[in-house]
Amino acid sequence: MDHNNKPLYNALIKHKEKNPISFHVPGHKYGNVFDSEGLNEFRHILNIDATELSGLDDLHSPEEAILEAEMMLAELYGVKKSYFLVNGSTAGNLAMVMAACEENDTVLVQRNCHKSVLNALKLAKVKPVFLSPEYDWEWKVAGGVAKETVIKAMELYPDTRAIILTYPNYYGLGYDLAGIIDLAHRSRIPVLVDEAHGAHFILGSPFPDSAVNLGADIVVQSAHKTLPAMTMGSYIHFNSEIVPADALEDYLQVFQSSSPSYPIMASLDIARSYLDTYEKRDLDYLIENIASFKAELKLIPQINVLEYQGQQGDPLKMTIQTASKAGGFKIQKLLEKEGIFTELADPYNVLFIFPLLKENEEFPWKEAAGKIKKALKGYPLAKSEKVAKHKEIKIAELAIPYKSMKQLHVTDVPLTEAEGRVSAEMLIPYPPGIPLLLTGEKISGEMIEHLYELLEHGARFQGGTLLDQGLIKVFK
Amino acid sequence: MDHNNKPLYNALIKHKEKNPISFHVPGHKYGNVFDSEGLNEFRHILNIDATELSGLDDLHSPEEAILEAEMMLAELYGVKKSYFLVNGSTAGNLAMVMAACEENDTVLVQRNCHKSVLNALKLAKVKPVFLSPEYDWEWKVAGGVAKETVIKAMELYPDTRAIILTYPNYYGLGYDLAGIIDLAHRSRIPVLVDEAHGAHFILGSPFPDSAVNLGADIVVQSAHKTLPAMTMGSYIHFNSEIVPADALEDYLQVFQSSSPSYPIMASLDIARSYLDTYEKRDLDYLIENIASFKAELKLIPQINVLEYQGQQGDPLKMTIQTASKAGGFKIQKLLEKEGIFTELADPYNVLFIFPLLKENEEFPWKEAAGKIKKALKGYPLAKSEKVAKHKEIKIAELAIPYKSMKQLHVTDVPLTEAEGRVSAEMLIPYPPGIPLLLTGEKISGEMIEHLYELLEHGARFQGGTLLDQGLIKVFK
Repeated sequence: MDHNNKPLYNALIKHKEKNPISFHVPGHKYGNVFDSEGLNEFRHILNIDATELSGLDDLHSPEEAILEAEMMLAELYGVKKSYFLVNGSTAGNLAMVMAACEENDTVLVQRNCHKSVLNALKLAKVKPVFLSPEYDWEWKVAGGVAKETVIKAMELYPDTRAIILTYPNYYGLGYDLAGIIDLAHRSRIPVLVDEAHGAHFILGSPFPDSAVNLGADIVVQSAHKTLPAMTMGSYIHFNSEIVPADALEDYLQVFQSSSPSYPIMASLDIARSYLDTYEKRDLDYLIENIASFKAELKLIPQINVLEYQGQQGDPLKMTIQTASKAGGFKIQKLLEKEGIFTELADPYNVLFIFPLLKENEEFPWKEAAGKIKKALKGYPLAKSEKVAKHKEIKIAELAIPYKSMKQLHVTDVPLTEAEGRVSAEMLIPYPPGIPLLLTGEKISGEMIEHLYELLEHGARFQGGTLLDQGLIKVFK
Repeated sequence: MDHNNKPLYNALIKHKEKNPISFHVPGHKYGNVFDSEGLNEFRHILNIDATELSGLDDLHSPEEAILEAEMMLAELYGVKKSYFLVNGSTAGNLAMVMAACEENDTVLVQRNCHKSVLNALKLAKVKPVFLSPEYDWEWKVAGGVAKETVIKAMELYPDTRAIILTYPNYYGLGYDLAGIIDLAHRSRIPVLVDEAHGAHFILGSPFPDSAVNLGADIVVQSAHKTLPAMTMGSYIHFNSEIVPADALEDYLQVFQSSSPSYPIMASLDIARSYLDTYEKRDLDYLIENIASFKAELKLIPQINVLEYQGQQGDPLKMTIQTASKAGGFKIQKLLEKEGIFTELADPYNVLFIFPLLKENEEFPWKEAAGKIKKALKGYPLAKSEKVAKHKEIKIAELAIPYKSMKQLHVTDVPLTEAEGRVSAEMLIPYPPGIPLLLTGEKISGEMIEHLYELLEHGARFQGGTLLDQGLIKVFK
């Protein structure tokens, strides 16, 4: 097999070379009709922004170039079937949950899962049981779910029908996913993995184990996040003996445009080929580049470069933690002023995602290191802040089923009167970045107490727009 | 207001001009990491394939450039709110139905609606009542739903909660949507319109009335189909006093990637600006070009160029009907051999979509006309075939609610034994392109009889993969 082959991209080029006259959608007619200024960026891509014409196959019923491209993808990942996604991992997460779960099924879900997973649970009207991840006290971020938590949850909920996990975490940290999959499969429970940040793990060591290799039933990957694919381009891999394959295909049709973008699909084909031809010498070159870059940054007194210790971690991610009076958000802003744009900040950290370079590719490492030094130079140092102790709600279910929530009205009450009410909003304090309260969860006295502690310590919140007035949204 | 202004596109260019160093997603790092061959098409677009960075706003919670761009869109269409869609009209149709309908609501739906509308009905678990469109005997295609059909359905189903229509039809034919909206609003029933092919109708005469102007509550438009936007780029307009706006926004988040494509969004901004600056002289130029092109085609004896008569029709669409022994599909193939790619074929017709040209833009009209002449030259002529009479099921509901369907198993039975069973598949005969049977519908003796008639007349079917063996899929 020629790993360099890009069947879908090639089909588009072949079509383009026919100099076709378009009397079909899209309306720009391969760029013939367009804003003249915008043509600077769009001209060349519009040449391949085609539609389901002869020779260009159909994403929703592939038989030719798209099928071939998807088969090459499945072969690379060693799974039964792989599919291109054009509506991001969002579509994959929705389809995976809907395919595996029926209404009222009990489903174990990582508490700090992606929003699209929460949306999927609501659409599927399942009974979610939320599992808290472990907190990493050094990194000051949420890690993965402990196998012990899953064991306990399966004991508490013997009717569990699926387990949904995020792997790795945003900061590149792995965890014992293998152990959890093994446990689940012994009870014929499928494990669905949102591996948004791990499409490149299939390259093997030094990258963490791929969820695909660890035997997960369905794995969703944001190809665009770490591979050279256009934004919204993702992969979903199906490798289950438990979930019906037909159901997944049906839902992929539901949640994705019936006019999928050919440039995005072609970029997924290109990304697969890029990965498929990634060699040892590319990896050596990459790792060496990253090591030198990190070495430079370690000389900056205002930050600590965190290293993975005893756990698997993704070398393509780097977290720097503040050792200065500037918190993570401030550092991110300082870097931006120098033209350095990073992935994420939290109160303590800034997250970098590195390029999956090949040996023939350049990246401005030196320039970047210089600019980072310049950005932070002279910023007053400070001792590391202690993270406020936070309550860990290991296993929790909702007080109101999703089905009823839609009918209920929402009001707000003072925090002092919130005990025993059911929250109508999600509150996520940073740190730890794990929801303290989920929509539909009962508010306990302990939670309120903890909320006050967090507010006192100046934690930031996602959600909780009324917290500064001492109010919280609850269901009537 | 400067209609030429493109706030989101401009923000991307401004960001690009900073020569940013990317330590964030997407993985291609503005094209730094990519397949060298693919760079020919992708290089320039990757420069603006960014993510939610400072200054680039957030589709799911817009406050800056995206909000400004969406407000300009709403102003152009004269609605309360407009939104960019990156997952095609599919996402818009799903969100619109979910926002307007609750489980078990009775909903009137055009029988030949888009697949995404059927998917939305299933997700929302409503009780659909299907309304058949009128058949246009000259065009040999399905037109729109008659006001009389809606009146009758509202009498039969006084608890109707929403009406979902497609406007115009694929071939550009309008119908009395104004009358239906008026009728519905008198009973405070919202009208949701899939106006996929009508984004340009806002330009006014000679284009048909826009569903937005006719007072529809929510309108979805595939900007990419007739405007210069990238494929998957669509608009949704909210203008309702009945449907809650919040609900629509919530569902738009559910059905669209949390990493939306900036190139697609920028192209939607560009398309709005293109439309916003479309002038009388552009229109004159366009209409003149179309008229000359049609005049050329009318000289070809193998085809008839259909004209709109007494009904509103979209000048950007042209249907040619065969006057030869070649059916629509064959004609489409013959044209493709000459490099002319059209939108759609049916047994009798081939559909062309014209470019919405401005005065300064060229299109190879003459070359195209010459190639079409050449493609059809000498093909033996034939008299127009009579379309087989077909049974019109004007108003129909399902025998099994969506909720139960998921639990049922599917089997196949001979057509001779199918009467009284419930169909587990959708059968769409062409012509008329209106589903003869929907999934979940009871199979009557009349339907089977009609099915035999259609098969005898050589109708083509979408669905019904077992029909050639005389079998049909039913629920057990």
